[in-house]
Formats: sequence, structure tokens, C-alpha cells
Amino acid sequence: MPGTFQINKTSGLSRLGKFTTSNGSFETPNFMPVGTRGSVKGVDIERLAEAGAQIMLVNTYHLWLKPTAPIVRGLGGIHKFTGWQGPILSDSGGFQVFSLKSIRKISEEGVEFRSHIDGAKCFLSPEISIQTQEELGVDIAMVLDECPAGGCDFGYFERSLAMTQRWAARSLAARRKETTSIFGITQGGSHRELRTRAAQEIGALDFDGVAIGGLSVGEPKSEMYEVLSYHPQQLPAAKIRYLMGVGTPEDIVEAVRNGVDLFDCVMPTRAGRFGRAFINADEPTLNIKNSKNQNDTAPLDQNCSCLACRHHSRGYLHHLFKVGEMLGPQLLSIHNLTHYLSLMRSIREALAEDRFEALYREIQSRWAKVEEIGELGGVNG
Amino acid sequence: MPGTFQINKTSGLSRLGKFTTSNGSFETPNFMPVGTRGSVKGVDIERLAEAGAQIMLVNTYHLWLKPTAPIVRGLGGIHKFTGWQGPILSDSGGFQVFSLKSIRKISEEGVEFRSHIDGAKCFLSPEISIQTQEELGVDIAMVLDECPAGGCDFGYFERSLAMTQRWAARSLAARRKETTSIFGITQGGSHRELRTRAAQEIGALDFDGVAIGGLSVGEPKSEMYEVLSYHPQQLPAAKIRYLMGVGTPEDIVEAVRNGVDLFDCVMPTRAGRFGRAFINADEPTLNIKNSKNQNDTAPLDQNCSCLACRHHSRGYLHHLFKVGEMLGPQLLSIHNLTHYLSLMRSIREALAEDRFEALYREIQSRWAKVEEIGELGGVNG
Repeated sequence: MPGTFQINKTSGLSRLGKFTTSNGSFETPNFMPVGTRGSVKGVDIERLAEAGAQIMLVNTYHLWLKPTAPIVRGLGGIHKFTGWQGPILSDSGGFQVFSLKSIRKISEEGVEFRSHIDGAKCFLSPEISIQTQEELGVDIAMVLDECPAGGCDFGYFERSLAMTQRWAARSLAARRKETTSIFGITQGGSHRELRTRAAQEIGALDFDGVAIGGLSVGEPKSEMYEVLSYHPQQLPAAKIRYLMGVGTPEDIVEAVRNGVDLFDCVMPTRAGRFGRAFINADEPTLNIKNSKNQNDTAPLDQNCSCLACRHHSRGYLHHLFKVGEMLGPQLLSIHNLTHYLSLMRSIREALAEDRFEALYREIQSRWAKVEEIGELGGVNG
Repeated sequence: MPGTFQINKTSGLSRLGKFTTSNGSFETPNFMPVGTRGSVKGVDIERLAEAGAQIMLVNTYHLWLKPTAPIVRGLGGIHKFTGWQGPILSDSGGFQVFSLKSIRKISEEGVEFRSHIDGAKCFLSPEISIQTQEELGVDIAMVLDECPAGGCDFGYFERSLAMTQRWAARSLAARRKETTSIFGITQGGSHRELRTRAAQEIGALDFDGVAIGGLSVGEPKSEMYEVLSYHPQQLPAAKIRYLMGVGTPEDIVEAVRNGVDLFDCVMPTRAGRFGRAFINADEPTLNIKNSKNQNDTAPLDQNCSCLACRHHSRGYLHHLFKVGEMLGPQLLSIHNLTHYLSLMRSIREALAEDRFEALYREIQSRWAKVEEIGELGGVNG
């Protein structure tokens, strides 16, 4: 039945599960490639499936403005539109709107803003967001929430959380399609008191899943890890838990260890477009543009079976980036997605075989040396 | 044996054949996708094979300057470098050099020019060109020739042709690798007397194939068709005939009808990147950016089985171009290459089944209305 989350095994706080939608199911823990405007940048849907993707994410904000939800619906809905026949989750549009620099006004009713495309005045409310996501025809819709900037004071966080909570209830009430699952979102920044309250209040509502919002938005990693140490286990045990916009392989294993089931991030594709490859090695990322790759006949990763690693040397990939051939970004995006989705499969296998802790330590130790997270790209776009 | 051209059937002036190289053979008539810098823009080698490509072309000029021939050789040669295991033909580098606006001096010895990358002084001669192509490790190398601008007078054409002829003999003498086939090139613009002389002189040398150069370089189509009406049949009947840098489907069937066996052109990929699709319809091309495609649920071409047509509507492809997603150019490039290579297969099947004349008339009548060749992209790059 759509919206069903089945937990097949728990191991410590971690869980091995399966979430079912009207368009198939996906195993958890899992990672969603980001198809911002209805396309994972540079990666066609057959390559996406080949990389191991079981579910794709699209951004409501972008599709809402262009081509618009009625046009997507007219073209048969988001699955026919993108060609991706498996599960599709959309965000609420809130994250992009609240990131806009253009004039906006947040009120109890919703948020006023100007389109980044043509400056047109737009209005987004919890109801409009759910209605738009249902019109797109996604399998999983996210509620509209406010994600306050890290610099806000406790009072702002508290008032914002209370409104986000009221928006959550309105979002549920706005649902018209039984087949659309809706996930609530907890906010509260790094404030334990607020996260705890959010967990209780969002947990009490009839959502099909609960997401953790407001992390990996610029705060120090130690703060995010602190929240991960107590927050996921505050969420309803029977529901799928989704950590939004996270992260590096290190962040992902940290969160899985604390009971998170689902992730999304632009990092693999954005990093790929800029020439950064994720590999299974002591140094877990590689800058293909570095001249040391110029004469290297080895593939990016000896143990990877992706398109790039099947056919091409580091030297060739280096060349493609140096001369600006678009095939370079394409190949590294495919490689990085394959890396991420293989990691998720490894995590599931390790959980099934009671050896997740060893995998966790391996990833953590590799990543302990990496200091350049910023360069790999943030959560947005 | 490498360099063998086997003609299996003739039909009028047209021929059905097979050319063999050290890295496999290709059927003729055929079309070579252009992998300028060692990559067909936006199209990975598995998609290239899926589109039906049997041979790929690379540009010596570009690879010579970057990454340089020694680096390609160090990475295992052009086949390992690109990952394309089938036949590869390279041009001589001359066409790009003679197109450069930077200072250059043409002498009997060769041509002096400045690199478009860093302005460095470079020198290309018939011997250096062959040596470079052999170092790249291509299956078929082209001789260095001068392709005079259309505006030159008869005297210039005549002197240029005489030098190109001496360069041809020097190119053959420069060959060091038995496995590298070398094709001569005829020039002479639209001058019948010069074309005839070129055919005799190039035909008399021990080339593995003969190319027709200096067409589709800005002259009126009627002039090119006039040359096609007598020139291909002046070339040695037993050798493969390659019309360089041509062209539209209309040009290709015209040339096949006059005995040409092999083609290359950037048109399918360049047009694809700009949103122009080739289709089997009364209007043989379509501008996907046109707003009439916005709500169209039909694929580009009902009878096409390419990646784009398997999964995507015109409405979705229109959207990708409107929002600038790189997947749009990728999908249209794949579609257009599939269209071209399917056309070549149709031509071969029609020749085999004695119905080429009907196919020729069908393509000619569709294209008779098209006036916008310029927009589809020229021969270079």
C-alpha cells in the first residue's frame, strides 16, 4: 500500500527497511539523486537507474515556476514528464523560496516572494505547496516549513517552529490524493529543546514519514552531529526518517548510525560537474583537473563499474575537463552517483550482515582527514 | 587486411561496401560522428555505439595541441584514450589551421601558424601531420592539403592544387606504420578542370582511399551538386570515396547516388546542441525551443528508438532547453546521430534491395523545402 514503511531489521539505532509508493518501492537506507528541474544534471534516466537509483527528488519551486504544474500534469504528470517510472519525492518549494534574496514577506498565511526568473510576485502557502505537488503527481510530498537562518535568535526559532507546526497541520488537511504520501519536517536549528518539541508535535500528526530539516545549512559539523546524536531517535520509530540535504559519505553513515533512513544531496552531481570525484581510497575524493592525472592510465576507481570507470582513464577524464568537453561533467556525475548509491547498498548489506559498525568506522576514518567540504557544494540546487 | 575496401554491390554509380581496419571494419555508405577533441560532444561511447556508429572521426589539430600526441600515445593510443574500440579516422589538421585567423605563412615546406590556445608558434607539414596521426594511433590518416577560400582566383587554385599534390606524395612517403591507412584528398574548388586533374593525380598514388575536400565550405549548393555530378566517378573505382564535412541528409543521398561512400559532419551534434532535431517527417527538422512543443506529449520521432524517443516527450525536451538543462543538448545530439546513422543503414538496405532511387527521391522531396542550412551549423568544429 502506498505510504507503507516496513522495517525488516534494526541494528543499534539503524534500520533496514522498505518504503512503498504507487510507483514502486525503495529500500532504506537510501539516497535520492536531485533532479532539480526534472532532470538530474547531465545524467539520463537509464544511467540513473544503472547507477542504482531507486527514487529521485525534484524541486517544486523550480517546476512550479517553469514549466508550471499544469504543464507537467498535461504532459502526463511528473513520471511521464521526466521518464522516471520509479518513486519521486518533491520538496515543498520552501527551501528555495526562503533562500531567495528577492523581496519576501512571511506571514501566518504563507510567504510572498518574487520569481527569480522574471520578478513576478508569487505566493506560497502550505496548501498551495501540497496542491502543487499533488498536481505534479509526485509519490511523496513534503510540507512547507520555514528554515530560519543560523544567525537567528532562540525567540525567532521558537516562533518560527510554532508556525511551521501549524503549517504542518494545514498541509495534512490540504491533502486530496490518497496516493500521495506526505512527510512532516522538524526544525529547531541546533536547539535541543526545540528539536525535542518538534519531534513530539510532528510525530503526533498523521504523516507517512518525518524529515529532519534545517541541518547542513551552514552550521558547524559538530553541531549537526550533536543534533544527530539525539534527534532521529526522538522521531516515531515506525516511520521513515529523512535527513534533508545531507551530505558527505561521512555524514550519511553518521546519520544512519543514529537511525536515519533517507537522504538527498546535490553533492555528487555538483562536485562531479566541477571535476571532483568520490572514490574508495584513503583519500576519498580526487580533483580530476589536477595535473598529476594527466598521464594516469588508471580508472577513477578500480572497484567501480560505472560508465566512466568501465571505459576511461583518469588521463582522458583530465583531458575532457581541461578542454571543457561536456562529457567530462557527465561522466563524473555518473561516477559520483554510482559511488553514493553503491555506498547505500553497502550500508544495507552491512546492516543485513551485522557488520555496519566496521563500515561506519572505515568511512569515518577516511573522511576524518577531509577539510574541504565547502568546495564540494552545498545543499541547494 | 587493414586498408582493404570490398565492394559487395554497385547500383547505378552507388556502391555497397566494407572497409577493414586493424580495429574492425565499417560498412559503406556510412557516416562518421565527429569527436573533435576525442569526445563526440555530450555523447558517451556506449550511446555512440547504440546510435549505430561504426567509425568515429577525431581532429588532429585539436588533439595535437591538447593533450598532445605523446600524451595520447602514453595513455595507450587514441582507442584506449577515447574508449572507442572501433575504427577511428583523423583529419590532417590542415582544415583547422587554414581556418585560423592568426598569423600564418604557407610555404612549400608546410604551414606556420599560432595556436588558438596560447598563441604559441607552430608548424605543420605533410610529414608532421602523418607522424602525428600515426602517433595518435588512428586507423585512417588524412593527408595535409590546402583548402583555398572560395574567393580565390583560378591561378591561386591551380598553384595550390599543385602544391597539395606534392604534399600528397610526401605524405605517403612519410608513412611508418603499415596498419595506418592513408587517404588522399582532391581539391580544386568548383573548377572542373582542376577537379579532373586532381582526380587523376591523387588517383595515381598508392592511397587506401580518396577524399573529396573543399566542398561544403561556403559555396552555393548548386556548385557542390555540380561537382558531385562528375567528380566522384573520376576517382578510382576500387577505392573508398569520402566526401569531407558533408552534410545534410539531402546532400548525403545526392553524393551516395554519385558514388560517394563515406561522410562526416558536425551537423547532427551541433544542431542538436542548439535544439534542432532531424526527424522523419514532411518537415525534416524541428526546433524544439519553439513554443508549440510545450504541451506536446509525442516523442521527437514516432519511428525512432533512441534514448530521447524511448522516454521523453517533445514537451519535456522543450522544457529542458528552456531552462538550460544540459540533458537537453545531450538527448538531441543522441537523437540526431541516431537519425543520421539510421539514414545510412536505410541507404545500405535500399541499395541491397534495389530501391535506393525511391529513398533518394523521398529525402530530396522532403528537403527541397528547407532553406535554413546555415542555421544547422557548418563543417568546422
